[in-house]
Amino acid sequence: MTDAATVLARCAALGEISEEPGLLVRRFATPALREASDLVGEWMRQAGLDVYEDAVGNLIGRREAATGPGAPAFVLGSHLDTVRDAGRYDGPLGVVAGVAVAERFAGRVLPFALEVVAFADEEGTRFGTTFLGSSAFAGRWDPAWDALTDEAGVTLADALRAYGGDVAEVPGAARARESLLGYSELHIEQGPVLEARDAPVGVVTAITGQSHAEVRFTGIAGHAGTVPMDARHDAAAAAAEWLLVVESLARAREGLVATVGRLELHPGARNVIPAEARLWLDVRHGDDRARHAAIAALREAAVQVGAPRGVAPDWDDRGDIAAVPADPALAARLTACVEAVGAPVERLASGAGHDAAVVAGLAPAAMLFVRCRGGVSHHPAEAVAVEDVAVAIEKLKEY
Amino acid sequence: MTDAATVLARCAALGEISEEPGLLVRRFATPALREASDLVGEWMRQAGLDVYEDAVGNLIGRREAATGPGAPAFVLGSHLDTVRDAGRYDGPLGVVAGVAVAERFAGRVLPFALEVVAFADEEGTRFGTTFLGSSAFAGRWDPAWDALTDEAGVTLADALRAYGGDVAEVPGAARARESLLGYSELHIEQGPVLEARDAPVGVVTAITGQSHAEVRFTGIAGHAGTVPMDARHDAAAAAAEWLLVVESLARAREGLVATVGRLELHPGARNVIPAEARLWLDVRHGDDRARHAAIAALREAAVQVGAPRGVAPDWDDRGDIAAVPADPALAARLTACVEAVGAPVERLASGAGHDAAVVAGLAPAAMLFVRCRGGVSHHPAEAVAVEDVAVAIEKLKEY
Repeated sequence: MTDAATVLARCAALGEISEEPGLLVRRFATPALREASDLVGEWMRQAGLDVYEDAVGNLIGRREAATGPGAPAFVLGSHLDTVRDAGRYDGPLGVVAGVAVAERFAGRVLPFALEVVAFADEEGTRFGTTFLGSSAFAGRWDPAWDALTDEAGVTLADALRAYGGDVAEVPGAARARESLLGYSELHIEQGPVLEARDAPVGVVTAITGQSHAEVRFTGIAGHAGTVPMDARHDAAAAAAEWLLVVESLARAREGLVATVGRLELHPGARNVIPAEARLWLDVRHGDDRARHAAIAALREAAVQVGAPRGVAPDWDDRGDIAAVPADPALAARLTACVEAVGAPVERLASGAGHDAAVVAGLAPAAMLFVRCRGGVSHHPAEAVAVEDVAVAIEKLKEY
Repeated sequence: MTDAATVLARCAALGEISEEPGLLVRRFATPALREASDLVGEWMRQAGLDVYEDAVGNLIGRREAATGPGAPAFVLGSHLDTVRDAGRYDGPLGVVAGVAVAERFAGRVLPFALEVVAFADEEGTRFGTTFLGSSAFAGRWDPAWDALTDEAGVTLADALRAYGGDVAEVPGAARARESLLGYSELHIEQGPVLEARDAPVGVVTAITGQSHAEVRFTGIAGHAGTVPMDARHDAAAAAAEWLLVVESLARAREGLVATVGRLELHPGARNVIPAEARLWLDVRHGDDRARHAAIAALREAAVQVGAPRGVAPDWDDRGDIAAVPADPALAARLTACVEAVGAPVERLASGAGHDAAVVAGLAPAAMLFVRCRGGVSHHPAEAVAVEDVAVAIEKLKEY
């Protein structure tokens, strides 16, 4: 039986399969993904699953129901592609754990089909568009993506053909709503919450909605030596004041996170008072109303901060992604399973996007997070504890 | 007689002499500077001055004293080189006005020699090192500068040779202390103070000292969606808080200006909490003790801001340039002259560097600022009023 230690060993083995020596990068439709996918396919077969690949390269292992072939399936899944210089668990853990859980049902009579799906692209590292795998699975493929090119100029269509897939067949890879009972994804948390709460796993309540905006403050450039403080219209000072409003507002509102990860000053010389500051804002919350209220408050704050400085704010919305609540019934089942194995029940929203959010458009979906060390992800230092994985796979087994 | 309108017309004529069509740029030792210098030399001759050029390309017009050749000289000067996309007054105004003033003494018996000097480089646009002209004049030439290269790879030594100068002779261009009585420079203010005070001219009290520093805040990167606000070590938020301390401290201290003109976040992605923020600080004051006290307070503030955030500050001094007070006796004379022509007496520090600060190492030096429109300089919109220039040249005449 594939135990938690073996799950981690398999993640380690997959972590060696990379496009570049010395660091882990495994992008969509590359020879490295082919090698990893073939290895996972072998593990799927060992677990008693029938294995096939859809037209976009998603690897699917399936066990039919006792009632015969073609019954609706419950799906366990995650992704096999990675960011550049990745850790070994973001994605593969959910796939490999899914195989381990499926193996636990090998001898049992099931009234439904069981599938483990390894999505071929979640990170979007190669073509700049995320969730290619789950989008094809969920019937949300955009034909415009066929013409996307990677940094070498290769189109997605050509890359997929070389991989063994076919963009022309991708629409046919979409799963019918009635073919699915539900979807559950196990994933590392990618944050520090479970570690802080001393809990091995956590039930995801929602995948948070996101607002993105570019906020520009326009003041007046001036000589750093000759313009007195009271005659300045300093765009950087306005930006700094607003950035602190962003922080304090997010701190004051439960469940809200708000980040300015990028900031540019123009002209950007030591001896010139900045004429312009551009800030990129990222706001997330599990409840879209709370998120929209925060955005409205921050827009108003930009005006309030700028006015006494004679600095004009300009707000450019750059994205509004709705929150995806977990299916309540599935989340309740997951919670019951966590209780059954004696682990503390923790609930948390996912601030990162996941395949589950895409699949949720097609079938009831839920997620279980596994505590990760230091909240680190998208980094080689990504780590999980074998005991936590044991809790996770035992729990999924009881699901 | 060259009146104020003619002075401005001559500045306009010089403004047409550029290395590039459509914008004004006239760098050290270029054909454009040669053409401008030759034109100014012609005006000097018309004003009754003997004209020569020193080894670094400074153009000097001299009228001997009534007592005979070789008497100590009083010098009126400024520079003929420009920044890229310059205005027409920063530098040339002081040179051309100096010629107009010298012309006014043409018929009079003077007990001292009078010189008008057009420095060949103040801005440092071509070789990245400022004050090449006045440094040679004041005996502060650094032989290492001979090997400086411009963006085309031409050395300063070669450029100067092509111009008609000679780096080997530059040390000999240094003026003896006893050959000079004093130096006075007329220059546009490059700031908004005189305009705000409704004064045509202002007597400069000092050229401010400058402190430059690079301040780095190091926090911890994190996912913008998964790390709760209370678990963050956001370098950008620390930087913003400190930037506002910089601003409020400078506002609270008389005569202090402090600027963060450049700020960089790393990694600088919308969805990543910044691990590092780098800020470039520029602090100026006419009194070095006040400036050093401000720097000490800002260093301490960086620690205070960082500590509760778990963000570590790192301070890298990048320059400490002492303030240069105007010669008290010369400044008093300038003040008396301003009173004599019936203009309001305004005193102010110069936040920008000028040739006068270099020459002050050799001879008593003072400066008179002329109001400029909107405080604009280093920009084609640079503008002065003919009435203000009339006040300035009449005043200098009485000096």
